[in-house]
Amino acid sequence: MKIDIYGLLEKVRNQRPVVHHLTNWVTIYDCANIVKVFGASPVMAHAKEEVADMAKIASALVLNIGTLTIDFIEAMKLAAKSANEKGIPVVLDVCGAGATKLRDEKCFELLDEVKISIIKGNSSEVARIAGENVQTKGVDATAVEKNLIEIAEGLAEKRKCTVVITGKEDVVSDGKKALLVKNGCEMMSNIVGTGCMAASVIGTFAAVENDLAVASASGLCCFEIAAEIAVKLSKGPGTFKEKLYDSVFYLDKKTIEKMRKIESL
Amino acid sequence: MKIDIYGLLEKVRNQRPVVHHLTNWVTIYDCANIVKVFGASPVMAHAKEEVADMAKIASALVLNIGTLTIDFIEAMKLAAKSANEKGIPVVLDVCGAGATKLRDEKCFELLDEVKISIIKGNSSEVARIAGENVQTKGVDATAVEKNLIEIAEGLAEKRKCTVVITGKEDVVSDGKKALLVKNGCEMMSNIVGTGCMAASVIGTFAAVENDLAVASASGLCCFEIAAEIAVKLSKGPGTFKEKLYDSVFYLDKKTIEKMRKIESL
Amino acid sequence: MKIDIYGLLEKVRNQRPVVHHLTNWVTIYDCANIVKVFGASPVMAHAKEEVADMAKIASALVLNIGTLTIDFIEAMKLAAKSANEKGIPVVLDVCGAGATKLRDEKCFELLDEVKISIIKGNSSEVARIAGENVQTKGVDATAVEKNLIEIAEGLAEKRKCTVVITGKEDVVSDGKKALLVKNGCEMMSNIVGTGCMAASVIGTFAAVENDLAVASASGLCCFEIAAEIAVKLSKGPGTFKEKLYDSVFYLDKKTIEKMRKIESL
Repeated sequence: MKIDIYGLLEKVRNQRPVVHHLTNWVTIYDCANIVKVFGASPVMAHAKEEVADMAKIASALVLNIGTLTIDFIEAMKLAAKSANEKGIPVVLDVCGAGATKLRDEKCFELLDEVKISIIKGNSSEVARIAGENVQTKGVDATAVEKNLIEIAEGLAEKRKCTVVITGKEDVVSDGKKALLVKNGCEMMSNIVGTGCMAASVIGTFAAVENDLAVASASGLCCFEIAAEIAVKLSKGPGTFKEKLYDSVFYLDKKTIEKMRKIESL
Repeated sequence: MKIDIYGLLEKVRNQRPVVHHLTNWVTIYDCANIVKVFGASPVMAHAKEEVADMAKIASALVLNIGTLTIDFIEAMKLAAKSANEKGIPVVLDVCGAGATKLRDEKCFELLDEVKISIIKGNSSEVARIAGENVQTKGVDATAVEKNLIEIAEGLAEKRKCTVVITGKEDVVSDGKKALLVKNGCEMMSNIVGTGCMAASVIGTFAAVENDLAVASASGLCCFEIAAEIAVKLSKGPGTFKEKLYDSVFYLDKKTIEKMRKIESL
Repeated sequence: MKIDIYGLLEKVRNQRPVVHHLTNWVTIYDCANIVKVFGASPVMAHAKEEVADMAKIASALVLNIGTLTIDFIEAMKLAAKSANEKGIPVVLDVCGAGATKLRDEKCFELLDEVKISIIKGNSSEVARIAGENVQTKGVDATAVEKNLIEIAEGLAEKRKCTVVITGKEDVVSDGKKALLVKNGCEMMSNIVGTGCMAASVIGTFAAVENDLAVASASGLCCFEIAAEIAVKLSKGPGTFKEKLYDSVFYLDKKTIEKMRKIESL
């Protein structure tokens, strides 16, 4: 299976899909801006009175529980139900799952009450959602003993969705096939926001491609190739982020074909 | 009519007016920082219990409905009433108008219940507020058939305020005179935040100049000259934004006089 | 007393403490990112239902009233009580104190109802909290007549805590000893966020050092040395901020020893 990554990037740039977010207050700008520099159209809206309407004009919905409140989760459910009705993909970034009881409970509530198309998190967050006994340390990943591919596959089957575990290598599984994305660089973990941006990128690609494992892996691959380019052009974590936006914006076919590191399992 | 743009910029830098914002959570940092690098003093405050007090120490108020909630709109009204009493200008950025029913309703409520001095938006947002039948696509502009100058003039007369339509050319009308600002560059539309920052810049200049059409056009002209300089110094949308702040900070008289493209109609 | 500043920085980098924030929506990204580039692990959480749990996995708590609401202050109290029980330091950034009655009242409520370990603000904010008759102008410092060292010492004794007044020279007092940090540069006051970031840095160092005056002064010294380096590498306020992150990330022992300007009083 040879994925046409650049073909999907072109679709994003040509179709300019609206990607509706209910995300956290820390990285909300970065989530919007990464969608924008990929060529799509981000919109952030969280009022209960409008989320259903906004989801209706969108091509994908991205939920991120990073700075959740009870009210905010209620708005997420309304948005997700509207997205489910329209049939657009819903990405859930289980940011900080395992850190507090509230986060775990609300993740499970969302997964039980609405149709989540893609669950995304780092290794300890996703392990927690898959039922493993992991204590996460805030929003940064902690050690997970079990094999990540097994965890992703198990959760994908259980929840009938696509599961993405980000890390040095990203694991993507839809329960039938698994993909590994081996792009990216260490510097991504030295700044705040790359994890949240990854979820937004996944949503952006899912807006133009029905095979959600392919969409997720392609989006991550593009994002992380750009990061590899950016780190060489920058002198630390501050300049890295700006160069990351530059590099995404100018990604071309030749670069993607040369640098891509996706494996089917 | 030859506008003394640099004279107004100097007033901003010397008077350092406090510009009170109730804005959205996506670009709140950028709104604050652009005001700061122009030399003024931004303050963001949205608690119902303090917005009236905060508006009283300010020289302009900027409202932006980008991530509105019902409560937030109520706080906007309290702030605007206080601003109206004090007699300071109130800018309303109708961000995303036309995307959902809630946004339209709340814009009209604000326009009906408080005195808005300057309405600012992109072409489809302002057309919607002017009563045209336009469906906007999230927060990005969509095509508008009717002549933008007519729309601006009509809305300015109807609402007895100044109207600013941003775009490749910015249209400014106070119902009596119209101004066109032809500065700016394509790259501004490739990042999130330039629209919101434009409203903050307009508020900053309105804090030091009573002719609100002149203030709006002058602020936009400075901001967009800085953008033209920034795009030449940058390598994409990430570095562009940082260079934009640098360029605003160091704007001087000679550069403004050389690059200004303002026309009276 | 010769403070081992680099030793504390190494502790931050090795222990990677979780620093829990309830901060404002303007600079929340910068607060998180500065903690991250110092090598620690920021977490932002403000739901009343989880703040106590989150504080329990943290090594320091940072509160910032920049965009306070009544609800938000209630969440701060719950977080602070949990932090007090665990015995971790609580930093309060009295951002905008003196600008409105609400801010003053809520600062005093926090100081009366929970144990604040470190009060941090600019000269006019801290003077207000110390009971001086100062009108602040939004969030920027205004002139204070009384000697700042006296104000810091008096407030430290009265509230039995450490007091930090940031400015051209930063004053730190725990009521027994006072320290002056003379690092930093003018450019820090030309962008939004350096004050809030300073509070986050203080919290980060307080997470690894029990002498809170030493922790505060050491954190500020590192942050401001990085700023001095950054300003030389940048071309204005936009590029300055990115270079600031770069410079913090690569701070080394030799640089700190050469550039440090801390005095005991």
